[in-house]
Amino acid sequence: MPSITVLGLGAMGSAIAARLRVHGHAVTVWNRSPDKTEPHAEAGANAAATIEEAVAASDTVLVVLLDHASVRERLDPVAAELKGKTVVNLVTTTPNQARDTAAWAAEHDIPYVDGAIMAVPSMIGEPHARLLYSGDEHAYNAVLPVLEQLGTAEFTGEDPGVASLKDMALLSAMDLMVLGYVQAIAMMRTAGTPAVDTAAEVEAWLAAMLPHGRELAAIVDGGTYDTGGQSVDFDRFGIASLITASREQGVRADLLEPHQKLLEELAATGHGDSDWIRVIERLTIR
Amino acid sequence: MPSITVLGLGAMGSAIAARLRVHGHAVTVWNRSPDKTEPHAEAGANAAATIEEAVAASDTVLVVLLDHASVRERLDPVAAELKGKTVVNLVTTTPNQARDTAAWAAEHDIPYVDGAIMAVPSMIGEPHARLLYSGDEHAYNAVLPVLEQLGTAEFTGEDPGVASLKDMALLSAMDLMVLGYVQAIAMMRTAGTPAVDTAAEVEAWLAAMLPHGRELAAIVDGGTYDTGGQSVDFDRFGIASLITASREQGVRADLLEPHQKLLEELAATGHGDSDWIRVIERLTIR
Repeated sequence: MPSITVLGLGAMGSAIAARLRVHGHAVTVWNRSPDKTEPHAEAGANAAATIEEAVAASDTVLVVLLDHASVRERLDPVAAELKGKTVVNLVTTTPNQARDTAAWAAEHDIPYVDGAIMAVPSMIGEPHARLLYSGDEHAYNAVLPVLEQLGTAEFTGEDPGVASLKDMALLSAMDLMVLGYVQAIAMMRTAGTPAVDTAAEVEAWLAAMLPHGRELAAIVDGGTYDTGGQSVDFDRFGIASLITASREQGVRADLLEPHQKLLEELAATGHGDSDWIRVIERLTIR
Repeated sequence: MPSITVLGLGAMGSAIAARLRVHGHAVTVWNRSPDKTEPHAEAGANAAATIEEAVAASDTVLVVLLDHASVRERLDPVAAELKGKTVVNLVTTTPNQARDTAAWAAEHDIPYVDGAIMAVPSMIGEPHARLLYSGDEHAYNAVLPVLEQLGTAEFTGEDPGVASLKDMALLSAMDLMVLGYVQAIAMMRTAGTPAVDTAAEVEAWLAAMLPHGRELAAIVDGGTYDTGGQSVDFDRFGIASLITASREQGVRADLLEPHQKLLEELAATGHGDSDWIRVIERLTIR
């Protein structure tokens, strides 16, 4: 069992350190405020007093710090010590921040894997905790037995930004879906319907409608937006009704307005007859 | 089998008239441009030359015209003829438009049921075509055997606007979910991922996350927003990351911005520590 260093003992770092320790690894932990290392030390982990000591203790370093800025702040001073060790950065960052750290690592001959955790701390170690990785595939494969103890591991590509990108894309989709619940609940409670009743209705309805996303995706991949499906002009009419209905009930339509704006842009540029899903082309800045 | 009149032979009106005719009803059809009545007449329906004639032919009148304005324009001149007959308005309208037509009907002693069709025309007659109704419950029950031939019928309340409201609320939720696919596909294709591949990922991810809506709804019903779940301030940080990631990839973040705006409003009014789902209170205009 290789020795593992975990930098950062927030809720996620603590869950990861605990999981690896329980699985029999020699775990070295470090945290900015040292009091958080105490419960880990009591449970048998090696609590490093300095980040230099923490990095020296293992050939694999898992980074679970607060954000991108803290990653660079903490790792820069120990770049020389990290040379040849594998750094797995599990901090939530944007794709460009991941690429930035990867470039820094390459400069210092540090094999680098960027990770994105699609789970809450309590899920760490369960198969339904999904962790995405990208970057140095050789380094990834070497530490995979360790990573697999955290949840289901998935390598998404050598572009170190891709794991973050996929994480952010899926979280964006989830965010918008959840806002769908919010909009529906806000509308229905104007008629006295409890939120939980609306949520149950929405859940059943969205579950039935989920496969529709695939049909729309096929139109996007086709790229011509002339399948004769729901048109921009038809959709403008529909969205305008939703917005009017919401406002009539005393519910702001802010969440629905961007869709309308994108459709207006398409109509104004001569695409009223296109499949409405052409809105995706308005989102993409060429 | 009672005789039924169908006003309006667009795709939906035609599907409804055909379904009732096949089921053995005497069906009278009327359409603004009479050529659309021809195929129905050939198949055995009674094609009325005027709306007065159409209304006189049956005690139950299904209205499937273009929009709210056309409903009032067509029905106003035949209000006296409609007295005592049941009008079922299946036109997509806002809740207030439905209430408006219901008030007009009450004025003219016309039993009135407002309907909302959660299906495309090809689904009419199938059990998974869902039709919501509200308004005069006595009239609804009397025509229910007819309505049940169109799909699964559901009475939502005596407020004639409620069927439309529920329709609009569920369509809003679907719209935002679909925009989630759009955002994710737009982000992932910057890394070369085909839309259909992203859609498959999103579908699996959202299916797993659907029950989360119920948890959030329980917090909304609780009304205190102090459950210690994800806070406004935490969510602001998360949404800001999604927006930055999107823009970095050359994808406009318009769809995500309203969520951020609502969170900023909450933070500015002293609710940074509240459960983030308090955003729903910002949507509701008191």
